[in-house]
This record gives sequence, C-alpha cells and structure tokens, in this order.
Amino acid sequence: MINTLVEKIKKLNAPIVVGLDPKLQFVPEFIQKKAFEEYGETLEGAAHAILEFNKGIIDTTYDLIPAVKPQIAMYEQFGIPGLKAFKETVDYAKSKGLVVIGDIKRGDIGSTSEAYAVGHIGKVKIGSQSIAPFDEDFVTVNPYLGTDGVKPFVDVCKENDKGIFVLVKTSNPSSGEFQDQKIDGTPLYELVGKQVAKWGEDFMGDEYSNVGAVVGATYPEMGKILRNIMPKTYILVPGYGAQGGTAKDLKPFFNEDGLGAIVNSSRGIIAAYKQEQYAQFGEEGYADASRAAVEFMIKDIREGVGL
Amino acid sequence: MINTLVEKIKKLNAPIVVGLDPKLQFVPEFIQKKAFEEYGETLEGAAHAILEFNKGIIDTTYDLIPAVKPQIAMYEQFGIPGLKAFKETVDYAKSKGLVVIGDIKRGDIGSTSEAYAVGHIGKVKIGSQSIAPFDEDFVTVNPYLGTDGVKPFVDVCKENDKGIFVLVKTSNPSSGEFQDQKIDGTPLYELVGKQVAKWGEDFMGDEYSNVGAVVGATYPEMGKILRNIMPKTYILVPGYGAQGGTAKDLKPFFNEDGLGAIVNSSRGIIAAYKQEQYAQFGEEGYADASRAAVEFMIKDIREGVGL
Repeated sequence: MINTLVEKIKKLNAPIVVGLDPKLQFVPEFIQKKAFEEYGETLEGAAHAILEFNKGIIDTTYDLIPAVKPQIAMYEQFGIPGLKAFKETVDYAKSKGLVVIGDIKRGDIGSTSEAYAVGHIGKVKIGSQSIAPFDEDFVTVNPYLGTDGVKPFVDVCKENDKGIFVLVKTSNPSSGEFQDQKIDGTPLYELVGKQVAKWGEDFMGDEYSNVGAVVGATYPEMGKILRNIMPKTYILVPGYGAQGGTAKDLKPFFNEDGLGAIVNSSRGIIAAYKQEQYAQFGEEGYADASRAAVEFMIKDIREGVGL
Repeated sequence: MINTLVEKIKKLNAPIVVGLDPKLQFVPEFIQKKAFEEYGETLEGAAHAILEFNKGIIDTTYDLIPAVKPQIAMYEQFGIPGLKAFKETVDYAKSKGLVVIGDIKRGDIGSTSEAYAVGHIGKVKIGSQSIAPFDEDFVTVNPYLGTDGVKPFVDVCKENDKGIFVLVKTSNPSSGEFQDQKIDGTPLYELVGKQVAKWGEDFMGDEYSNVGAVVGATYPEMGKILRNIMPKTYILVPGYGAQGGTAKDLKPFFNEDGLGAIVNSSRGIIAAYKQEQYAQFGEEGYADASRAAVEFMIKDIREGVGL
C-alpha cells in the first residue's frame, strides 16, 4: 500500500493528507440545521451532519490530494451513528480514489491487537466468510505495549497489502513527558524509531516500508534525527498549521529524494472558511475554502521543503 | 465511581472482573448456528452470536461479581454491528447492576482524547442536547502521549462521576521493551506510575482515586513496587489464569486493607467450558461453566491473597 501512496504523492507533487476531524463546531450551520431537521438533535443528526460536511470537502479536494486521514475519535464521540459516518467517510474517500489513513491509534496485547488489525485493515473470518469491516488503507498504531502489540498489525498488513504508521514522537506539548526520557543517553522516541525501522524491514514496498512512523511537525530537530534513524520509513507528520508547525520546519522530515514524509493538516483545511484569509467564501462556500487552503498548503510545503 | 466499585468489591469479597472478550471461537456452536441461520455468516450474525453469548455469562455470574470488562477490540473487529453488540453488552451488564470497565486503551492529543472521553464516559453536546453515547463506568487509557493526552479523560470523569485505569505495566511478554527502559535508574513504568498517582490526586474517592492503573499479574515484583508508589490507586490486574499469573502472584498488588486491586480473567471464565476441569458442563452449559470458574477464581484469590 505504501507504493500506491508514494505513487500518488509523486504524481500530484503534493506530500499532504487532509485530516477529516469534523468537530461539530466546524460544520456550517446550514448543514447542521438540515441534519437536525431530518434526524433531530441526536447522535444520528450529528453523524449525518459530519458525513455531509466530509463529502463536501472530499468532492472539492480529491483531485489535489493523495490521501485523507479521518480521526476516529471525532466519530466515536457520536457513538454507533458516528462510527457509521466514519465507515461511510472511508468508503466515500476510497470511491474518489483517495488513500485512507484511519487515525485510530490502537494498540494492545497480541491477540487483541490482531482483532483491531483485522477490523480495520484486514478481514475477519465468520463461518466460511471473510469480511473486511472498516477497510482503511493505513491505520496509526500506539507502540507502548512493544513488539507483540505491533507485530499483529504488520502481519495483517502483509496479508492484505495495507500499511501502518506507528506513533514515535507525537505533536502535542506534553509528548516529551515520557517520549523524551533518556535511556543511557538515548531518548525513548529514538528507541521506538529504531524498532519501527526494524519492524518495517519485515514488509518493504519498492522504496519505502509499509510500516511508517508518526512524528510531529512541532519537533523538527527530532524529525531530523528520526529521519536518519529510519531512512526507509515514511513519516506521517501532524502538527502543521493550527498546531504551530511551519513549512520550513518540515524540511528535515523529507529525504534527499523529496519523499519520505506526508504532512497532515486537519482544522487548517476543513475549517478554513472560519479563517480571515478565506472568509470571503462564507459558510456556504466552506468546501471551496478548503480547496483554496489545500492549494495554499501544497504551495507552502513545496516552497518550504524545496520540492 | 471508584466508591461504587470498592463498595461492590467489599460486599461480595470478590476483587474480580470478568473480561467479556468474546472471540468467535469461544462462542458455542449452537449459539453461532442460531445467529447465522437468522442473520447469515455476516458481521450482524457474528455480532448477534457474541451478544447472546455475553448475556448468558452475565445472567449466570452477575450476583457473584462486581464488574465486567468488555474488550472493545473483540467487538470492533466485527465493524458497526460488532460495536452495537459492545454497546448492548454495556447496557445489559449495567441493567444487572454491574460496573462496566470499557477496555478501550484510547489515548491521543488533548482535544482528541477529549472526544474519546466524551464518547465513552461523558456526554456529547449536539445542539441543545447532551447525550451519553457509550456510557461505560470506567475506561482504560494509554499514557504514551503524556499529561495532555490523559487529563481530558480525568476532566470528563469529574463531570460525570466516572473513572479510568491508565496502562502502567502491561501483562504481555514484550511489555518491557519500552516500559522497563531505565531513566536515571528508574524504569519508565515507575515514572508513569508516579504520574498516575499525581493525576489521581485530582479526583479522589473516599479511600481510592478515580484514576486507577493497569499492571499485569505476570509481573508481581513490579506490582509490589508500583503498589508502594501509588498507594491510593486502584490497580486493574490482567494476566491471571490463561496468561500465566497465579493467585499467589497477586498478593503484592493489594494493600494491607485487602483492597486496592481488581483482578481480571477473560478466557479463563468465558471459555471455561472448553477446559477439562469444566468439560462436564458441555457447550450447552457454557454459562454454568463460567459461573463455576468464577466461584473457583474467587476462592483461589481469597486464599492466595488472604482475604
């Protein structure tokens, strides 16, 4: 699956992914109103509103971007109807030719990780049938439980030509609390990075591994070190834009070949119409505002990174 | 919520929780057959089978146990129908007076953790409404992202009188890969344990905090150290039984007051009918076999710990 992603990134010269994290406050009033009129102020109403919102953004941006990254928490908070909207978002994005990275950050002991893997990027056996329940292309994985929590994901990837991104150094302010702790002089995130590179050897694509890493744009110096430790690892980089990472912070995450990283923006794209810069689009033009924000982001990153 | 849990544990003198992790291979043929006849070999069929299976176990054990712990991965692997079965299991267990610990191991950056917290142990705002989507009593939380990934859970706990158990030292074989790494001589799990105790000060019950910890029965020496570091922290202890932890390994997890720990068994209870010891119950008697296994576990732990 990493080959497909790299191919798309090259073709579009756009190493970006749009984070579909549809908080209800990002959804324009007119969409909320319509959904609430039909389904009430219920979990169903909220789920329909966010799905409608997502479709608008996908429709206006899919020709510019290689991938989307729905954050499952934003759907799970609306219970079963929300998770249905997650699944429908995955399917809709795939129908438009987009690669879908499910930002699920799952991770557990062996057999339990296997169940998550099967549910999201594999097929579950039911009697004589094999069914792919969520069927994202990639998912994010939490490494705190060590190799036997991650390997089942890698095994399921191999069987189904899928990929994962393992959390190494996250973009949030307190990520250093445990991740930066030094073990014989080496920070934990480096230790995790080394393991990610090792896990990745098990399922290589042509140039990069199907086992990627998550490293926040907010920590460019650590990005540089991790880039060297994991030369064949694709890095999913959150934290650009709303969280404070700038385009010039992104250069260290890329390899000499101009590949090796894919940068996420969520709020900056999907709630662009709320920014002064895109205010002229208005609420009704929220999707066109997202397209303009995507165009700006691509230009910004091409210039900042030198692509 | 920790007060409610402690009260139930005291009343039953049974510091145990039954892990409802219904892999399809644990579900007796006759239940699978009935579900597949009605719903086909589909996600719906599997979901109905595991829900029926769970109800049988809850019906025969609820008077003996304070709590159940459904592992959401085992439901999520069956997609939306599976997650519906998770929610129905939560509701059914609560209707029988059981405390429900959602074993979800979620954890993300601040606003995303908040969405998970709201979805599982809080209420989500939709227009003028506040709705509790999954409504477990406790959930498990992954600490890899640090304080700003955990605090939103604590805040939502406070608003809704709920609780969490944070992963400190997990029961799996490779848990030491990162968790045991030494930082200035102190292993990471101790550092996490200290933070759990600190987070817990923020929302105390009468004797124990609403912020608990997960420490595997498979590591009793570490349990002893962590017990001392976190005297007011309830410890959820997986790994007893099928994973290899014995009753005498459990003593260090308890305080002098005979409280402070709750021990989980999943496979050992719910698939008891597959063990030689309970074979006489047969498939049809799987729920009675579970009751017998619960009775054995309670006796074993009372003796091993000295309760």
